[in-house]
Amino acid sequence: MVKKTKKIKAAILIIGNEILSGRTQDKNVSFISNWLNLKCGISVEEVRIIPDKEKIIVTNIIQLRRKFNYVFTTGGIGPTHDDITAQSISKAFKVKYEYHKEAYAILEKYYGKKKFNDGRKKMAKMPKGAKLIYNPSSAAPGFMTKNVISLPGVPSILNSMIDNCSKYLVKGLKTYSKTLNLYTVESNISKQLGLIQKKYKKSIDIGSYPFFRLGKIGVAIVTRSNSIKKLEIVNKDLTNLVKLKKIKILKI
Amino acid sequence: MVKKTKKIKAAILIIGNEILSGRTQDKNVSFISNWLNLKCGISVEEVRIIPDKEKIIVTNIIQLRRKFNYVFTTGGIGPTHDDITAQSISKAFKVKYEYHKEAYAILEKYYGKKKFNDGRKKMAKMPKGAKLIYNPSSAAPGFMTKNVISLPGVPSILNSMIDNCSKYLVKGLKTYSKTLNLYTVESNISKQLGLIQKKYKKSIDIGSYPFFRLGKIGVAIVTRSNSIKKLEIVNKDLTNLVKLKKIKILKI
Repeated sequence: MVKKTKKIKAAILIIGNEILSGRTQDKNVSFISNWLNLKCGISVEEVRIIPDKEKIIVTNIIQLRRKFNYVFTTGGIGPTHDDITAQSISKAFKVKYEYHKEAYAILEKYYGKKKFNDGRKKMAKMPKGAKLIYNPSSAAPGFMTKNVISLPGVPSILNSMIDNCSKYLVKGLKTYSKTLNLYTVESNISKQLGLIQKKYKKSIDIGSYPFFRLGKIGVAIVTRSNSIKKLEIVNKDLTNLVKLKKIKILKI
Repeated sequence: MVKKTKKIKAAILIIGNEILSGRTQDKNVSFISNWLNLKCGISVEEVRIIPDKEKIIVTNIIQLRRKFNYVFTTGGIGPTHDDITAQSISKAFKVKYEYHKEAYAILEKYYGKKKFNDGRKKMAKMPKGAKLIYNPSSAAPGFMTKNVISLPGVPSILNSMIDNCSKYLVKGLKTYSKTLNLYTVESNISKQLGLIQKKYKKSIDIGSYPFFRLGKIGVAIVTRSNSIKKLEIVNKDLTNLVKLKKIKILKI
C-alpha cells in the first residue's frame, strides 16, 4: 500500500476552441479539482486551455505529463473531425492509434450493429494500451494512457464518469480548508494576515478573497492545509485578529 | 495606422489558488476572450491557471509573453500577502518594483491621507515603467508592463476596467461566428462535417458541440472565420447537409 504522505499533483488540460473563444463557460476545472482533492487527496497545480490543434495538444501533453503525477484532459473524444484528442495523445506517446477491442464491443452493443457507423466507431479508437474509463451516461469510454486520463468535455457526462478514474490513481494527502467570511475590507487586515501567513509559512496557505453579498463588501479568508490540527491552530490566530479589530463574521 | 490583416494573439494567465482548488468558478476567461475578439479583433490562443507562487508566475510570464502578442493576467493585485502579481512581473522583466507616482496619488485621494495604510499603498507598487489601466469601480489601477496587462480577479471590477485597455492594444482581424443548432446527434453528420471542414481548411473553423435542451439532444455547429463572406459560403453547404439529412433546426 502506498503511504499517504506524499503530495500528489495533477494538471488539467482543457482541449477546445469553444472554451478559448469564450462561447462556452468551462465548468470542468472546478468539478475535477474538487473531486480530486476530496476523493483522492490529489492537488491540481496547473490548468491549461488550448485549441483543437494536434501540434499544440502533443506539446502540452508532453510538457504536463512530465511535470505532474497525472494529467486530466477534457474534450475532443467525440465522433467529429474536431475530436482529435486520442490521436494527439497517441502521437505524444509515440504509440499506435487503433481500435480498442473492449471499447469497440461496448459501442457496437450500445448502438447496435446497423447503427454503428464510422463516426461512432471513431470513439473506439485510442492510443494502444489505453485503459478504459467506463461511461454510464453515453457509453463512449474515456481512457488512460500512462499517466494521462482523457475525459469528454460535456460536464454532465464527465461528472458521471469521474468515479471510474479512482481505481487508477495513487492517493495522496487531502487538503482541508476552512473559510472565515468577514465584513471588512482586505486592507484593514492585510498587515496582520501577512504576519500570520509568515508564522505558518510551510504548513498553511492563507488566501484572501473580496466578496460582495447583498450590497455589503466582505473578505473570505480561506486557510488550507494537509493537517486539520494546524488548520485549527491558525484559525485561533485569525479569530483573535477578528476580535481585536471588532470585525463582524458572516455566518452562512 | 496598423493594417488589420494580421492575426493578433493573446494568452490569459489566471493567477489564483482559489480557482485551481475549485473553490471559485472562473468567469474572467470567457469575458476577456469575448471582449478581445469583439472589440479588438484579438484571438485568445491559450489560457493557464496557476497558483500564487512567485517562481511559477515568473516562469509563465516569460514563456507566454514571448509566445503571444499580449498576455492578460487576472488576480493577485490587491493589498494582501497573497497578492504577488506586480512583484512577480517586475522579476520576470528584471525591472524595479516600486511606487507608481500616479497610482499612489489616485489611491491617496480615494482613501484619504489618514486611511491610506500600508496595505492600500501596496496597490500603488508596480513594475517600473508600467502604464496604468484606470479602475472606475474601486480606484486601484491595473497596469501594463511591456506586452503584459494585469487586471484584478474580481469579475465585476475587471469588467468595469476592460475598456480602458483598448488604447494600448494593436487591433487585429475580428473573428466572426455563426451557430446552427440542430436536433440530431454528432455521429449522424460527423462524416459530412469532416468533408466540409476539409474543403474550407484554411479559412474556416468548424466546431461541433453536443447540447441538451429541454430533454432533447442536439448539436451546435459553430463556424468561425475572419471573413463574413466565407462564413456565408460554408453555411450554404451546412444548410444543404441539413436538408439532405432532414434534420430539424432549433431556432433560438
